[in-house]
Amino acid sequence: FTNHVIGRLQGRRFSTCTLGSGAEGAALSFQIRGALNAVRSLVEESERDGAELPRAVVTHSSGNHGQALACAAQAEGIPAYVVVPRTAPHCKQAAIRTYGATLVPCEPSDKSRAETASRVVQETGGVMVHPNQEPAVIAGQGTIGLEVLEQAPEVNAVVVPVGGGGMIAGIAVAIKALRPDVKVFAAEPRNADDCYQSKVRGELTPNLHPPDTIADAVKTSIGPNTWPIIRDLVDDVLTVSEEEIKRATRLVWERMKLLIEPTAGVGVAAVLSEQFQAVPRDVENVCIVLCGGNVDLSSLTWLKDLPGKAE
Amino acid sequence: FTNHVIGRLQGRRFSTCTLGSGAEGAALSFQIRGALNAVRSLVEESERDGAELPRAVVTHSSGNHGQALACAAQAEGIPAYVVVPRTAPHCKQAAIRTYGATLVPCEPSDKSRAETASRVVQETGGVMVHPNQEPAVIAGQGTIGLEVLEQAPEVNAVVVPVGGGGMIAGIAVAIKALRPDVKVFAAEPRNADDCYQSKVRGELTPNLHPPDTIADAVKTSIGPNTWPIIRDLVDDVLTVSEEEIKRATRLVWERMKLLIEPTAGVGVAAVLSEQFQAVPRDVENVCIVLCGGNVDLSSLTWLKDLPGKAE
Repeated sequence: FTNHVIGRLQGRRFSTCTLGSGAEGAALSFQIRGALNAVRSLVEESERDGAELPRAVVTHSSGNHGQALACAAQAEGIPAYVVVPRTAPHCKQAAIRTYGATLVPCEPSDKSRAETASRVVQETGGVMVHPNQEPAVIAGQGTIGLEVLEQAPEVNAVVVPVGGGGMIAGIAVAIKALRPDVKVFAAEPRNADDCYQSKVRGELTPNLHPPDTIADAVKTSIGPNTWPIIRDLVDDVLTVSEEEIKRATRLVWERMKLLIEPTAGVGVAAVLSEQFQAVPRDVENVCIVLCGGNVDLSSLTWLKDLPGKAE
Repeated sequence: FTNHVIGRLQGRRFSTCTLGSGAEGAALSFQIRGALNAVRSLVEESERDGAELPRAVVTHSSGNHGQALACAAQAEGIPAYVVVPRTAPHCKQAAIRTYGATLVPCEPSDKSRAETASRVVQETGGVMVHPNQEPAVIAGQGTIGLEVLEQAPEVNAVVVPVGGGGMIAGIAVAIKALRPDVKVFAAEPRNADDCYQSKVRGELTPNLHPPDTIADAVKTSIGPNTWPIIRDLVDDVLTVSEEEIKRATRLVWERMKLLIEPTAGVGVAAVLSEQFQAVPRDVENVCIVLCGGNVDLSSLTWLKDLPGKAE
């Protein structure tokens, strides 16, 4: 966890929270909190009951949670199967293999992910560890909220990108329990705005179509376990365009020298948006969670297509 | 200054020293040490003598020192003229303009830089602040060495890329004065190996031709003020190929998520080289200075041309 103050804007101070710093841990440090908590919980349960370890753990993931589960399972000697949309960045797929997991390709839709994972659970007798609806995963990721409060107690608001909602649900539970005065904002691509639509309608409203956004790690929809938490504890959802995401990502690259992936740029785009100016002025200290850092360096064409400079 | 441990290799621990963290300071934080010391010294001299401030400060720079001098001069209200090789990355040129300096283009050779800068000094009545031969610049940059010793007292060796030699000369003076047991290694592109050739021959040997290297910030040759320091205080010069530089840079991007420029990759490439394995085994803790972070995001074609993965 690093706390960079990135500057003042609209009379507010913005800092960012990157998860992990340097070396191999960086790619995993958000997801490892959830995955490790889930795998360790399974192991402790087996030990307590005198039962055998799970035959396998299974998940579906566009990449980051898959890496984390593979890593956590490898540490416990449990086979891992990761269902990966065939459109997921190659660098993420390669990283999952590095941790010894078996990759199972699927189509890039929530339906194909879920069905393929169910089939793998049946075939392997493994335990499903859902990337964002599993309570142990949500709780593990909530430790981010604890660390933000500990390391930046002056914080008035936290901005977190939302895909399946595991990270923001965990963070919201932790923050609202300890500091109900701190605002929790979700940041979401306008092209994948199921969380925004759910809040507007007051009911869980998944993305109808596979969303088209450069923020590949938040293409998934929020689900039955994260929705009630988001409904009750998240203050607002800020949506941003693809161009806003790309500009914000490039701004972080150029100015902070941090190679975040576009998904992490969603939160930065949100605080730079006009919408954010409507946030009350007493929200002075804003912490943006920057997650993750798996950029596919072989496909950076979007950078070229972006007109002008980021600033 | 950040101290990331980036891992173990050949039984050694490698850490890196990045200069500044986040926001606008990052681009400047190495060169600002030298430029600010030089400009403040001029101002204090004027005040002491009851004289007027310098009419202007002048320098030549492929970009980073130019930015730093422009920034330091702006803070004191002194006009700055920066002679820039016309091949310097556009992002660096734009940044110099942001700090209010006047850009004067020249050809990308040591000769054209020096001649153009002399002409500007004559025309403006300004004071030349050489980017790497000015003693106040060298002394200011030497504070990096002081901070390495303070923050990583366990260090056995420091690896520093060498261009004009100002940074390594300053660091070597600081480190050898306080901790003569700590090795100081220069890292240099094989295509711009004037420092290596000088050490081999025992006499200052500038690059004969404009060097062709992706590490644009170290294309300059060492000079009359940095050579004696390098000759006496730098333990060895490690040279690396263009492909080694590119691979090392990509490794830092992918694994550390730090958007360094290829010049900063030269030091990483050096410790990954076969040559480095000949360094005595008791050199266990190695600090690599990562400088700078001005990547031209509009010209990343070298990434595509690089076969395979960095690891």
